[in-house]
Amino acid sequence: MTERYNAAVIGAGYWGPNLARNLRAADDWNLAGICDLDRARAARVAESVGGAPVWTDIDEVLGDPLIDAVAIATPARTHRALVCRALEAGKHVMVEKPLADGREAGETMVALARERGLVLMTDHTYCYTPAVMKIRELIAQGRLGDILYVDSTRINLGLVQSDVDVLWDLAPHDLAILDFVLPGGLPQTTVSALGADPLGTGRACVGFLAMPLPGGGIAHIQVNWLSPTKIRRMVIGGTRSTLVWDDLNPQQRVSVFDRGVDLASHGVEAVRSAQVSYRIGDTWSPALPEREALAGVVAEFAAAIRGRRAPRTDGASGLRVLSVLAAATQSLERHGEPVAVAAPTPVPAAVPALEG
Amino acid sequence: MTERYNAAVIGAGYWGPNLARNLRAADDWNLAGICDLDRARAARVAESVGGAPVWTDIDEVLGDPLIDAVAIATPARTHRALVCRALEAGKHVMVEKPLADGREAGETMVALARERGLVLMTDHTYCYTPAVMKIRELIAQGRLGDILYVDSTRINLGLVQSDVDVLWDLAPHDLAILDFVLPGGLPQTTVSALGADPLGTGRACVGFLAMPLPGGGIAHIQVNWLSPTKIRRMVIGGTRSTLVWDDLNPQQRVSVFDRGVDLASHGVEAVRSAQVSYRIGDTWSPALPEREALAGVVAEFAAAIRGRRAPRTDGASGLRVLSVLAAATQSLERHGEPVAVAAPTPVPAAVPALEG
Amino acid sequence: MTERYNAAVIGAGYWGPNLARNLRAADDWNLAGICDLDRARAARVAESVGGAPVWTDIDEVLGDPLIDAVAIATPARTHRALVCRALEAGKHVMVEKPLADGREAGETMVALARERGLVLMTDHTYCYTPAVMKIRELIAQGRLGDILYVDSTRINLGLVQSDVDVLWDLAPHDLAILDFVLPGGLPQTTVSALGADPLGTGRACVGFLAMPLPGGGIAHIQVNWLSPTKIRRMVIGGTRSTLVWDDLNPQQRVSVFDRGVDLASHGVEAVRSAQVSYRIGDTWSPALPEREALAGVVAEFAAAIRGRRAPRTDGASGLRVLSVLAAATQSLERHGEPVAVAAPTPVPAAVPALEG
Amino acid sequence: MTERYNAAVIGAGYWGPNLARNLRAADDWNLAGICDLDRARAARVAESVGGAPVWTDIDEVLGDPLIDAVAIATPARTHRALVCRALEAGKHVMVEKPLADGREAGETMVALARERGLVLMTDHTYCYTPAVMKIRELIAQGRLGDILYVDSTRINLGLVQSDVDVLWDLAPHDLAILDFVLPGGLPQTTVSALGADPLGTGRACVGFLAMPLPGGGIAHIQVNWLSPTKIRRMVIGGTRSTLVWDDLNPQQRVSVFDRGVDLASHGVEAVRSAQVSYRIGDTWSPALPEREALAGVVAEFAAAIRGRRAPRTDGASGLRVLSVLAAATQSLERHGEPVAVAAPTPVPAAVPALEG
Repeated sequence: MTERYNAAVIGAGYWGPNLARNLRAADDWNLAGICDLDRARAARVAESVGGAPVWTDIDEVLGDPLIDAVAIATPARTHRALVCRALEAGKHVMVEKPLADGREAGETMVALARERGLVLMTDHTYCYTPAVMKIRELIAQGRLGDILYVDSTRINLGLVQSDVDVLWDLAPHDLAILDFVLPGGLPQTTVSALGADPLGTGRACVGFLAMPLPGGGIAHIQVNWLSPTKIRRMVIGGTRSTLVWDDLNPQQRVSVFDRGVDLASHGVEAVRSAQVSYRIGDTWSPALPEREALAGVVAEFAAAIRGRRAPRTDGASGLRVLSVLAAATQSLERHGEPVAVAAPTPVPAAVPALEG
Repeated sequence: MTERYNAAVIGAGYWGPNLARNLRAADDWNLAGICDLDRARAARVAESVGGAPVWTDIDEVLGDPLIDAVAIATPARTHRALVCRALEAGKHVMVEKPLADGREAGETMVALARERGLVLMTDHTYCYTPAVMKIRELIAQGRLGDILYVDSTRINLGLVQSDVDVLWDLAPHDLAILDFVLPGGLPQTTVSALGADPLGTGRACVGFLAMPLPGGGIAHIQVNWLSPTKIRRMVIGGTRSTLVWDDLNPQQRVSVFDRGVDLASHGVEAVRSAQVSYRIGDTWSPALPEREALAGVVAEFAAAIRGRRAPRTDGASGLRVLSVLAAATQSLERHGEPVAVAAPTPVPAAVPALEG
Repeated sequence: MTERYNAAVIGAGYWGPNLARNLRAADDWNLAGICDLDRARAARVAESVGGAPVWTDIDEVLGDPLIDAVAIATPARTHRALVCRALEAGKHVMVEKPLADGREAGETMVALARERGLVLMTDHTYCYTPAVMKIRELIAQGRLGDILYVDSTRINLGLVQSDVDVLWDLAPHDLAILDFVLPGGLPQTTVSALGADPLGTGRACVGFLAMPLPGGGIAHIQVNWLSPTKIRRMVIGGTRSTLVWDDLNPQQRVSVFDRGVDLASHGVEAVRSAQVSYRIGDTWSPALPEREALAGVVAEFAAAIRGRRAPRTDGASGLRVLSVLAAATQSLERHGEPVAVAAPTPVPAAVPALEG
Repeated sequence: MTERYNAAVIGAGYWGPNLARNLRAADDWNLAGICDLDRARAARVAESVGGAPVWTDIDEVLGDPLIDAVAIATPARTHRALVCRALEAGKHVMVEKPLADGREAGETMVALARERGLVLMTDHTYCYTPAVMKIRELIAQGRLGDILYVDSTRINLGLVQSDVDVLWDLAPHDLAILDFVLPGGLPQTTVSALGADPLGTGRACVGFLAMPLPGGGIAHIQVNWLSPTKIRRMVIGGTRSTLVWDDLNPQQRVSVFDRGVDLASHGVEAVRSAQVSYRIGDTWSPALPEREALAGVVAEFAAAIRGRRAPRTDGASGLRVLSVLAAATQSLERHGEPVAVAAPTPVPAAVPALEG
């Protein structure tokens, strides 16, 4: 029988109970306990999973040599300090998205994990849903051909956040998904962002973000806290077919449309002279299993520790998302001017690379 | 009994037959005939409406003193010459959208119509659909409150055009509608546009256009020729309620959601401190008559001539749309930098103003 | 070049203009003219197709030796007399559904056509839509397996008819489609029908019709004139997969769900003991061409004449539909008791059979 | 502060955990414990709600004088014995639907509760959803006018049950809802039922059930275990407006269509002569709170005990549902012949009536 790792959950707010429940249910994990500054809150989470130890002092958690790993679900501004202390204490770390509240903080965390040879995983939960895993698989198999455009819409009536704008609140989901499914990961070239704050809340409540894709395409993300209708839809158009992921349609979440411009029978000249014909083919919806994504997240965390490898959504992935968000914020301030995504600080060659 | 006006249709291509059919069916009009360089094409249109005179020489049409007006449905690049000749011949003119293929041409046309005291109407057909007329009415009545954002999506598998990009092909619809329904008309401030040509056709096939709205809001338009699914949806978010127009849902085209941020009970301070609550209210869909929009277009054209007034979608409206498109093209070339919309050339005060 | 047949349209009401337009446009046909008791009405139809001869006296039409065929679009109660006179005059006949207003009338017409060796075709237009043709093809290929159930819903806000109830008004569509797509044609066993007339109009406005299918299955048809929402949906469940035809969803009219009870791996015993498992497979939507069904109807009419064969929706097919409707009316009077469908009167063997 | 009642849950299968969780969370209740023949199963339920006493012997539960009430969630065939024993032990009883597996058993239970002056409640959970409560309210207010027809569809890929057919498995939901929302409760006149068992499982997997409504209308229920698509839709057509409840559309569950036959302006004569016009009015969707129905169920149970009154879904309601189901089974055996619903056995006048 495989050894179980011991994990503590740090943070008993919105996401903590889900982490606790999935760690408890997993074959790979023992839930060592819940830590929160507010003891009553931690106790409620512990009770909801049938009882577990409770701490209010993180030093106790990090000082416990039996604890292998921590799952951190605290506000983004606290990530840097908590993650670094945990890594320095020799713990593997999984951290809520976004990885940090700034690019530099993210770089520090990734570098430290690399230096210590520990797993640093970003909890990009969506990447472990059956729909997104199927999308990644279909793209990798070439089913869509080359990617021409991505158009993602994530809108609903949402609470105006006190610390972040709508881009930092919602777009990390889309960026993490793109990082996961696009062949080269999330593009790190330039970003254009526009937003509006029509209620005078002090931060954008409506936002648009665009990035060039390799080969001349474009990825566009639209987020909105003020929409009375809820839409969660991503369209990925390719040269061979186009995929539509409608996350609110449980009966047909992912559809592949075998339609598009017929390049094969026309050639580039035809396209240039606009004599392009269109192919109307069949539509196909793969069956998807019903499965809780977070179960896959904690399984991958354990597998990465066991295999001494980077998890699929590692710290570097979280950092690519952060880098795009940081550039988006600058573009927003410059009214949509494209801003270059900062290149990652080079890592000294001598350090063994666990993070992919 | 009211006198009927005589109208000739110029151009027997895609739109000409619809104009001919509606002029023939209208109480206000006699269809005087069809003019096209290609006689056979003109004859086919004439036959489709039960017979009508046919010309190939526009001078014959313009020289006929019995003809009061012309409806021009030729390619955009021909509009300037044809419209000006018709106005100079003393004919009232209705012209297919876009008004012209450039801002300057549009200004010339509008100035000439004004000078001659003739009606110049842009055929913004969508503005005469029951849905758009209802939207205009609801906004004018204050039902939506102040407009916070507009989000319009117009995508489908469309033919790559030989002469225009996707912004010039599809966005005129959205811009004309905004000009018609927004209290101050189409904003003439700045425009940001992004696009992509992932197939290398020489023009953008995917496009995004954004404009600030008065009061801090934003209008965003997304157009795409490469989408396998067809979407025609406009969302108009206001302080009181939000309207969704889904033109492909004949059973519920227009919905008004009485949901949004509850400002009244909180005040600006609450909003600034992000203590905003949300109101979830009822949804309401007005009944809309089934009516062909183009019948309303030709009726308005006649009414404007009869009433010696500017039509609701006059040349100035077409010019506002052109000005935004021209700025969008510049922004596209500058990778999304906002570009100021050119101010209209001042009109000498002495000229009597028929155009509103 | 193939010879064209000459056809006259009898009846210039709701459907006549469509017949006239399609006959005029077809390569196989010359539109010989339009006949209606109301000359003005006939003239309007003639004008709408660019001009055609007009008659008010059917004897002139039937006496014209150049006319090969007639397409009859008059009320059902007139079909018997008109069709018989046309057949006796040696004309091939296509007649609007339902074939007649009673079973006996239908039998007379079918027998007469057979006797004279002439084509008698029922205009079951739906059978020539790309969707229904695809459904027939998929069932014939075994893609659905054995048919377990059919569930058809055809409801909307419709005018209460003065002469027929909702079953006779709407169910002929469903019955004709079943006759076309089911391997053995429309079952001629028993029918159960229920209805209601909650407004006291003197005829059922809501109706339900059910028939056993070979092998223990059931076909159920629901029709309703009082529904504010419009539904046109047929579900055909089979042992291998289930087909859903949603005629109001132009983007995905026909879907095949590869889901169902997994019999193969369980066997009958498992089923009896209710240890049945379910298979959740992919969904697939075939691309369907955009094509006017009535063009296919008139082409089939010509092909049947030319090939001296029964058309796909022949008089016998119309008669099977009539027989089920007649039994349904009896069942309705008996509050849903199942009523046997009358067997067709045997045809003397000596008569050559053109009708299949 | 109000006194809490003590309740034990009997049965730790599919529904038991939900009952336990809601009793624990309710202000009116103390969860006294869980009873199941399988101790481990009971223990798991107890643990899932944070711990509770566990029994395997029902006599211990019923013998405990501190226990006021039991909530029974065992198979239908066990209801009669368990409910009667609990009532004889002086406990108030809430029981899973269907009330029993036969009409007679239901009558016995209702009579016994009445005799002992105890609350007997059927857990018709759907009646406590915000949607159904709103439907009841709208009908009671006259918003729909007189009810003309009800059309309910409840289909999906469901497990073939080992003990009941699809009518007994799924139709109780629809019948309980009709009993709750129709002004006179569930009609107890006649029932027609049809079904099919195309897989040879020994019981109907596809079923149809129809009942006349007062005033000439009809209620129709369609249930199906073999449908690959899931539909949960009820249409209630009235003289004033028509309501559509689509339970799978969380954004617009209940819609009221202000459309229908315009009787007011025409009169009965017009209707008889079929000169009926149709009114196309607005559509309206009331906002509905998000609330767990079972919380309302347990609150109503407590309120009925406290108020010494019958609960809204009392034993008599469960019995009306049973009576219709029993008649449906007979009609099914007679191939759809209408079967009269058995009249309730008269209750001796001397017995005080707690059950409404």
